[in-house]
Amino acid sequence: MAAPILLLGSLLAMSSFLALAYDVKPLQDFCVADAKSSVTVNGLACKDPKKAKAKDFFFSGLHLAGNTSNAVGSIVTPVNVAQIPGLNTLGISLARIDYAPGGINSPHTHPRASEILTVIEGQLEVGFVTSNPDNRLIAKTLNKGDVFVFPIGLIHFQRNVGWGNAVAIAGLNSQNPGVITIANAVFGADPEIKSDILARAFQLDKNVIEFAQSKF
Amino acid sequence: MAAPILLLGSLLAMSSFLALAYDVKPLQDFCVADAKSSVTVNGLACKDPKKAKAKDFFFSGLHLAGNTSNAVGSIVTPVNVAQIPGLNTLGISLARIDYAPGGINSPHTHPRASEILTVIEGQLEVGFVTSNPDNRLIAKTLNKGDVFVFPIGLIHFQRNVGWGNAVAIAGLNSQNPGVITIANAVFGADPEIKSDILARAFQLDKNVIEFAQSKF
Amino acid sequence: MAAPILLLGSLLAMSSFLALAYDVKPLQDFCVADAKSSVTVNGLACKDPKKAKAKDFFFSGLHLAGNTSNAVGSIVTPVNVAQIPGLNTLGISLARIDYAPGGINSPHTHPRASEILTVIEGQLEVGFVTSNPDNRLIAKTLNKGDVFVFPIGLIHFQRNVGWGNAVAIAGLNSQNPGVITIANAVFGADPEIKSDILARAFQLDKNVIEFAQSKF
Amino acid sequence: MAAPILLLGSLLAMSSFLALAYDVKPLQDFCVADAKSSVTVNGLACKDPKKAKAKDFFFSGLHLAGNTSNAVGSIVTPVNVAQIPGLNTLGISLARIDYAPGGINSPHTHPRASEILTVIEGQLEVGFVTSNPDNRLIAKTLNKGDVFVFPIGLIHFQRNVGWGNAVAIAGLNSQNPGVITIANAVFGADPEIKSDILARAFQLDKNVIEFAQSKF
Amino acid sequence: MAAPILLLGSLLAMSSFLALAYDVKPLQDFCVADAKSSVTVNGLACKDPKKAKAKDFFFSGLHLAGNTSNAVGSIVTPVNVAQIPGLNTLGISLARIDYAPGGINSPHTHPRASEILTVIEGQLEVGFVTSNPDNRLIAKTLNKGDVFVFPIGLIHFQRNVGWGNAVAIAGLNSQNPGVITIANAVFGADPEIKSDILARAFQLDKNVIEFAQSKF
Amino acid sequence: MAAPILLLGSLLAMSSFLALAYDVKPLQDFCVADAKSSVTVNGLACKDPKKAKAKDFFFSGLHLAGNTSNAVGSIVTPVNVAQIPGLNTLGISLARIDYAPGGINSPHTHPRASEILTVIEGQLEVGFVTSNPDNRLIAKTLNKGDVFVFPIGLIHFQRNVGWGNAVAIAGLNSQNPGVITIANAVFGADPEIKSDILARAFQLDKNVIEFAQSKF
Repeated sequence: MAAPILLLGSLLAMSSFLALAYDVKPLQDFCVADAKSSVTVNGLACKDPKKAKAKDFFFSGLHLAGNTSNAVGSIVTPVNVAQIPGLNTLGISLARIDYAPGGINSPHTHPRASEILTVIEGQLEVGFVTSNPDNRLIAKTLNKGDVFVFPIGLIHFQRNVGWGNAVAIAGLNSQNPGVITIANAVFGADPEIKSDILARAFQLDKNVIEFAQSKF
Repeated sequence: MAAPILLLGSLLAMSSFLALAYDVKPLQDFCVADAKSSVTVNGLACKDPKKAKAKDFFFSGLHLAGNTSNAVGSIVTPVNVAQIPGLNTLGISLARIDYAPGGINSPHTHPRASEILTVIEGQLEVGFVTSNPDNRLIAKTLNKGDVFVFPIGLIHFQRNVGWGNAVAIAGLNSQNPGVITIANAVFGADPEIKSDILARAFQLDKNVIEFAQSKF
Repeated sequence: MAAPILLLGSLLAMSSFLALAYDVKPLQDFCVADAKSSVTVNGLACKDPKKAKAKDFFFSGLHLAGNTSNAVGSIVTPVNVAQIPGLNTLGISLARIDYAPGGINSPHTHPRASEILTVIEGQLEVGFVTSNPDNRLIAKTLNKGDVFVFPIGLIHFQRNVGWGNAVAIAGLNSQNPGVITIANAVFGADPEIKSDILARAFQLDKNVIEFAQSKF
Repeated sequence: MAAPILLLGSLLAMSSFLALAYDVKPLQDFCVADAKSSVTVNGLACKDPKKAKAKDFFFSGLHLAGNTSNAVGSIVTPVNVAQIPGLNTLGISLARIDYAPGGINSPHTHPRASEILTVIEGQLEVGFVTSNPDNRLIAKTLNKGDVFVFPIGLIHFQRNVGWGNAVAIAGLNSQNPGVITIANAVFGADPEIKSDILARAFQLDKNVIEFAQSKF
Repeated sequence: MAAPILLLGSLLAMSSFLALAYDVKPLQDFCVADAKSSVTVNGLACKDPKKAKAKDFFFSGLHLAGNTSNAVGSIVTPVNVAQIPGLNTLGISLARIDYAPGGINSPHTHPRASEILTVIEGQLEVGFVTSNPDNRLIAKTLNKGDVFVFPIGLIHFQRNVGWGNAVAIAGLNSQNPGVITIANAVFGADPEIKSDILARAFQLDKNVIEFAQSKF
Repeated sequence: MAAPILLLGSLLAMSSFLALAYDVKPLQDFCVADAKSSVTVNGLACKDPKKAKAKDFFFSGLHLAGNTSNAVGSIVTPVNVAQIPGLNTLGISLARIDYAPGGINSPHTHPRASEILTVIEGQLEVGFVTSNPDNRLIAKTLNKGDVFVFPIGLIHFQRNVGWGNAVAIAGLNSQNPGVITIANAVFGADPEIKSDILARAFQLDKNVIEFAQSKF
């Protein structure tokens, strides 16, 4: 799973120092993120609006397939405020997801966005799990042109169940939706969550937990 | 221009009686719109969450081209809460837009959403205009895989400037973004805005205004 | 129409470089806009609250008639955060509108505010148009002491239909409501929206469009 | 003080059973309050939007002076969602305030709105007090055409310090701003706050407290 | 782990059919949840405010220790809108957590609240994990009188590392914060998430996954 | 009453120059307040998130009783963003309140938070007053383990009616809730509200008002 996370990591690296705005209405026509600002606020400092250019609202390359040669067989190409500074304060972003045959987009949550996903190519099995106490799995197999919704904060996943590659485009209602990949956050935290805590939480042997931790 | 508007109209008709929620956070995992509810509130009444099904979060057919044989040479296929009841309260939707060669998506605003548009096929010229006093046009020509952003409330448009058909997918951060097509709202209001008001506003002869009104 | 827009323009010029806050609750008793701050955020930097003075919450002169000698016969005197720095973050503003006999406040939208208008003097015909697909005109003739409401984002207008001058005061629920005058944004964009796009959108001859563009 | 409060009371009585919306964005073009709905929610149920009429957005009579013959010498004429059902969800309202010579609008808070007040006639002394620990009084004398701002939640007041009557119009950024008149809520609560609590809080003799309570 | 979840489940059962409001400001002084209402909205229907009683704002018994005899050695006693109907729309709740020696409050998220936790008795090791790509563990050992914060949406946990029982009280900024216990949602979803998806996501053998699933 | 207010004052002094965020969602995992930032915005500037430490989310000493030797016989120990910089943007805080026998927490409002209070020790009489026109007192006597709710913006108070000391812990849904102690703001404003205004508002003799003012 390292690969897509790392890519996502590097793509988000730019924004991780920045405190990006979501859920806060634009307070002017737009507020293009100012990459040179030294100020870090709850929401990103803006360029002088008179200096905003069309390229501040632009991104290129979403038609290009990502490289799915990694442990989970999928890769996310995000198009959020880290890629398009003009998205700052606007509360919307996109992502392209490529899946090798059998590839999964591992169970994860977006703490700051709901997601609406369209299958551009291939066949996906998708699902989300409701919160306690029911933990109901709501799942469906999607084909080309099908659309599915993942509510904010809920654990969800996709798997390519078709014969070939699959491609999806997802809309998210935040310019900085955030991603918490469950396996990485639980078994790959840095420093590690103590293995006896996880053993009791997951009711697994401590050795199994430590083996899982060694993978992340 | 009648055709896409009419289609959009019929698609939105279901929702026009409903008072749909946007910009209000989900107050539970989800709140699937209850089509049978007689209550009309600022936000739609929900089904019993235990009765929510996967199909409440599902839509099919976004891979199908719309019919662009109309006055403006374009057609919008919306995927919002009128099509997917599970989008209720989630603040996100999609739309597919098809353009015949030379077709335009006429200048319009979304009063309740910013938009992020991806070109799936073809070549589009797109732009938006900033508010008073500058009224700056920020425009760009987009190719396959290019992405562009239209900030909430601003007048924007697209035109197919390629040789063949063009297709775009747009994400909008509202489950009920609303559309105000400028030409239709100004010249096609029902009943009409008096022609001498429009003549003075647009500094055109009253006959020209009335001719324009006759088209909508 | 140039004159009121220009005046509005110059009044807003101060604020156009600023990224002004609306729809964001005050996070302290008040946050008086700091005109000397070099920081541009989604919401304006504040003065040290201990240095706030009564004059920061004050404006003078709303009893004075504006000069309506311009193409549309009306003039807006805004009282928003550009005039009263203490309005920053408070989400409210006022405007006075003067109308010569027959003068209009041209069809426009406020992307960030609903408006409640009171007729102080004279007689006005007012209206707004609902969004697609109905584009219903909801209109009324108002006399002294009458109040009318224009919902956020909808196209609306006023016309002086009385014998003498008319005066209105409008409350708006944003300290930076924004104005998009339709005629100016569509026919007066800078650079221009290409005339063949507008010709197809408005179903008018290209020459007519170009004539209209020459007026703005 | 009874009179203005009573009038305000009777005007608000209609709305006090209703759970009115503020600070919740309109989720459609408008949501005219349905006076016949039996549903009480956090926000008022709406009429079918197709049945909305111009009169739903209309109020008449704000040019008429209120009767200031009461203990405090002032009277408020509110124009909020209780008077204009079309204000429901729109987050804006007005009020007219009449002051006899020497009349006061007693210290009060609006728990759900900031206020911007314009003097239409006469001369007012106005002020607000900041929160703990400073409790700074920020005050000013206003003349015709002057505008002043009272931030949300802060205690504020006005007094007519001119020779004749005074009139003000106030905009408030809520369709249901709420009023807490300090003297009435503290000394006129029903049932009474025990006098020894108030005696200790105000560091006054219990007899003085009970005398004050007898007035409300 | 079943026990605390089941208890939480039964406590939340009342509210799970209800669509409870968080993050939506009160639109009146209060909106006591009406347990008899058949209407399900994004936010709960209110009782007539004139019928609100002191007991609608009241809960009793938070001084009583919960029963920690369960798989994880801890138990949560929630005090949210399911227990206090007067919390409806107010955006705040509490919980008491009891921990047997060595007991854990298993890694979980609150999709709708940040949490501030105070140790009333005993010693706790607590932590949360940041989102991708860093997945940083921020952890601390707390003693009586210590306070710690868990930001909204992030995975967090507590463990009793003292010699005796431990007790904490947590404030949460939602009247319906929601809980997603990671182990339960991932390994105990109903129906199950397919074991090969989890095997690939957690990089564990399918048998290990199925063994874990058998525990939940 | 001076003592607790002064303490609260000194505790809040740090934050009073800062423009602290409430009611604005976190726009990233967290935004630890940067005490060294010179920028004052609607919401506090953040430290580089990579430099956030566990101690930024930590406070110690809430088990310690405050000193209630003051005019009102109570003392508040706040734990908000002034004490825990990691609370910035998270919208939650706590406070401990100690009461000597007979001590009161004087009538006050929180302009930016609802409150949920738990009695840890002793017996309290608590109440809040609804807004105009009813000004209903909703009151109850609480014992150890009882919980009560005070809705945002309403005047509320507590009094120790037990034989010994009392202790309560309150959760508030803002990291900077604000406090307006009615007696202090009305009779202790600086500079003073003119005594004849208060005399008319409270229908008390001017001498009584001036005596009360001399106490604050």
